[in-house]
Amino acid sequence: MRVAGWVSEVRDLGKLRFIVLRGERKVQITMKRGEVSDDLFSATEDLPQESVIEVIGFETDRKIARSADLEVIPKEIRVISRAEKKLPLDPNWKVQALFPTRMKYRPLDLRRPEVQAVFKIEASFIKGAMDWLDENGFLMVFTPSIIGAASESGAEVFEVKYFDKKAYLRQDPQLHRQLTILGGFTRIYDIGPNWRADPSHTTRHMSEFRSIAVEMAFISDEEDTMRVEEQVIVAGMRRVQEERQKELELLGVQLEIPRTPFPEIRFPQVYEVLEGMGKRIEYGGDYDTESEELLWRYAREKYNSDFIFVNRFPFAVKPFYVMKADDTWARSVDLIYKGEEVSSGGQREHRYDVLMRQIEEKKLDKQSLEWFTSFFRYGAPPHGGFALGVERFIYRMLNLQNIREAALFPRDIERVLP
Amino acid sequence: MRVAGWVSEVRDLGKLRFIVLRGERKVQITMKRGEVSDDLFSATEDLPQESVIEVIGFETDRKIARSADLEVIPKEIRVISRAEKKLPLDPNWKVQALFPTRMKYRPLDLRRPEVQAVFKIEASFIKGAMDWLDENGFLMVFTPSIIGAASESGAEVFEVKYFDKKAYLRQDPQLHRQLTILGGFTRIYDIGPNWRADPSHTTRHMSEFRSIAVEMAFISDEEDTMRVEEQVIVAGMRRVQEERQKELELLGVQLEIPRTPFPEIRFPQVYEVLEGMGKRIEYGGDYDTESEELLWRYAREKYNSDFIFVNRFPFAVKPFYVMKADDTWARSVDLIYKGEEVSSGGQREHRYDVLMRQIEEKKLDKQSLEWFTSFFRYGAPPHGGFALGVERFIYRMLNLQNIREAALFPRDIERVLP
Repeated sequence: MRVAGWVSEVRDLGKLRFIVLRGERKVQITMKRGEVSDDLFSATEDLPQESVIEVIGFETDRKIARSADLEVIPKEIRVISRAEKKLPLDPNWKVQALFPTRMKYRPLDLRRPEVQAVFKIEASFIKGAMDWLDENGFLMVFTPSIIGAASESGAEVFEVKYFDKKAYLRQDPQLHRQLTILGGFTRIYDIGPNWRADPSHTTRHMSEFRSIAVEMAFISDEEDTMRVEEQVIVAGMRRVQEERQKELELLGVQLEIPRTPFPEIRFPQVYEVLEGMGKRIEYGGDYDTESEELLWRYAREKYNSDFIFVNRFPFAVKPFYVMKADDTWARSVDLIYKGEEVSSGGQREHRYDVLMRQIEEKKLDKQSLEWFTSFFRYGAPPHGGFALGVERFIYRMLNLQNIREAALFPRDIERVLP
Repeated sequence: MRVAGWVSEVRDLGKLRFIVLRGERKVQITMKRGEVSDDLFSATEDLPQESVIEVIGFETDRKIARSADLEVIPKEIRVISRAEKKLPLDPNWKVQALFPTRMKYRPLDLRRPEVQAVFKIEASFIKGAMDWLDENGFLMVFTPSIIGAASESGAEVFEVKYFDKKAYLRQDPQLHRQLTILGGFTRIYDIGPNWRADPSHTTRHMSEFRSIAVEMAFISDEEDTMRVEEQVIVAGMRRVQEERQKELELLGVQLEIPRTPFPEIRFPQVYEVLEGMGKRIEYGGDYDTESEELLWRYAREKYNSDFIFVNRFPFAVKPFYVMKADDTWARSVDLIYKGEEVSSGGQREHRYDVLMRQIEEKKLDKQSLEWFTSFFRYGAPPHGGFALGVERFIYRMLNLQNIREAALFPRDIERVLP
């Protein structure tokens, strides 16, 4: 058989030499003087950690290897790539590195099994979510990343030099998801990158992040989108539980599949609950990061749940396209998971005249939004959806210390390389 | 039962009125005077095409409807959104629109069943490809879109104003896929957007496009990546065949699952074959668009195949990171499908010293590539992969007239809205 991988460890015990390989599996190469040729000993003399080797040999079932998936007696060993002895980061983590070092030498950091585990779990979560969406009639689509008009506030968008014009990177494929619905696609999802030019240095923001964004037509109200969202999350988590037990153990995470429906709290009750917990927010105001933490505590205590939907935000703090439930409150929904806002969504306003009034109310420029609003004149169904932040969710699900750990190569104000 | 959709047609036949709805299904609402209340007749009087209505009623099996999926006798009809009478584009296609008009009013264009079919087929193709990759041990990953250094020529990249610095949109997640491999992930795929600032107006280029990009470690040579690529394509096409017969028929496409392995032609034989077809390319030169067309014809005639791999391109015309097979030719592979280059790939150079020599040979700045090359000093396995252009592939598979038809909201030098 043929195995290959990165040399994680070489142990010399006189007549015995063990080489532990990191690769698709963890393999122990066992060399015993007399049993294997002396050439193999000299070929692997002073073999630096992280070198890549290929081994032809046969599997043994002597069970000498305690922690390897496979033990191999070599007949041939080929050193494919000899690593430099001095590593800027030790993938065996015997010498631990600080966070900036980890990010600087990310490819070496990624070799750590506990780091690999994060991405294996992330892939399973997304696949579980996608499969549920497919099975429930949602079509995978791709909406554009480059947009000709800064959609919302415009404050935190990245500008692109687009030939001789200016364009922007989307913050959320929100408006194009709506236009896809107006295009007669009644249930869609879009998994892709979004960007926010957020100059902050928090552990919960990145400049580039992915979302699972869902939009659906012919809903009764925003509750329909919440029912879909919780099923998407449960399907993702179930898939992780099925496929990634080993990785969860490695990270010390016990995954509990949440009960549905998730509890919900609405404004203005949010103000009362927060006030009861000692946090005062002005009536009609938005909540803040600390409130998210408190509402999670509330959800744990009252509902024994890590999830809670927060609904009916003040229209005043939300974008023009959300649907109002009355003059003050909007059918605008956040999902809080373990103290963190992991998604935003709700029902969108589909009535052209109401939409135009809301644009007036927000004192926005009607003409600059016409590329979007004009299509509501030709038949628009009630619709809504949500965008779930993938890295944000995984960061909380796995109790990571920094959202950047959930991105292969995170991007922020100081990081665009590697 | 409750059905809803866009009014596609209203037919009045004296005592009978038929309303045909476009939605998740095609529904015919049948109203007979005396059988349904007169209120329903007045509510649907002068109902403009493309209005959105909701109907409560019961299904009938009288089979009056010839081409609808469902026929409903209404008890209640609610007009949700009344469309303006004058439409800038007719989704029934009784009045056909020119291409620029289609793109300008894309949400109306998207309502056409033959346009919807393209995206349903595209989703099935991608899902089929993904499932094959998952089943064969490839991990779904997301590499960054924003990069701090223009990777290749730098000529056709979009520049992003990144806080107070400059950054770029990736042309291909190539280099980060390689760094992910160096991060110990041995089989990965990345489905996401790429950008090319191509100012041309051809029917085969867009500024923003998606690729299914695959990278794998421990390959023997570039042939391994070709074997994976053809399986990915076959899996995608099979899924289309299984799930989208109706859509294929609507587009008049007969899908044939290609035989594998796909035929292959190598440089310098490419020059001879082309010369035999009357096309002369200087020895050592790159091929062009016309050559792609000719090589397809060659593949059809010689192998009865719409696919042909073109391998061993001149190193001189390829980027620094490709692996040479000898001094002149590289393990660099394109796939031609129906006269169109749909993917690029091959084996990458993993030996640090060789990589550095190739950078010298290309007269590139070593220091500006250090963020990438430095990681090859710490153990690099042989690896390779490919990036298959999704819209490009679908455009050819469905014999579309313009690649833009395979993007919901295409982006090019004149289009960033809607």
